[in-house]
Amino acid sequence: MTPDQLDVVFGALADPTRRAILARLTDGDLTVGQLAAPFAMSQPAISRHLKVLEGAGLISRNRRATARLSHLEAQPLRDATEWLARYRDYWQGSHDRLDALLKSLQTEKPGRNR
Amino acid sequence: MTPDQLDVVFGALADPTRRAILARLTDGDLTVGQLAAPFAMSQPAISRHLKVLEGAGLISRNRRATARLSHLEAQPLRDATEWLARYRDYWQGSHDRLDALLKSLQTEKPGRNR
Repeated sequence: MTPDQLDVVFGALADPTRRAILARLTDGDLTVGQLAAPFAMSQPAISRHLKVLEGAGLISRNRRATARLSHLEAQPLRDATEWLARYRDYWQGSHDRLDALLKSLQTEKPGRNR
Repeated sequence: MTPDQLDVVFGALADPTRRAILARLTDGDLTVGQLAAPFAMSQPAISRHLKVLEGAGLISRNRRATARLSHLEAQPLRDATEWLARYRDYWQGSHDRLDALLKSLQTEKPGRNR
């Protein structure tokens, strides 16, 4: 992941609505209407957030029949976590566990087939 | 950490110069002059980045003799990693390690005394 990609990933994560959208998508793909339902926000406003998430690679959007579904993509979240995990020397007592995390992030492929 | 705090932390991380500053501070506290040296950037420009990092709680700045030193703070990086680690279900094969990480982040205090 290049520095520019990390910029847009962290930038996309810097918003509570976008983080909440990502959290909801962990349970499965959703339409913009389904995503908008719990928010006091219009569908166009939610669509703008989805565009930011898509630009950062955090979600993909696919048509299924007449619905356009948003799908969570794991890799940018892994890359962002990997960047943060480098600062493990500042987290006393969890070095070994973070070493294992870092190793697993570097060697394993993202899960969940589409 | 409240949603607002995560906003400013992720926002502060969405810049390559600020991430590079954090990386350099893992080796110890530095003055603005020392931090500016490797960048093709003026000290005032670096100072603006330091102000953003300080606002996010990612660094603190303390006077020592005549120098104002920037110091990396671990907790916001831990909190941001903890948020990201919730999406471990998307990272096949590393569930156990991430569970251990999450547990350690929730129970342990940040390391490194000032």
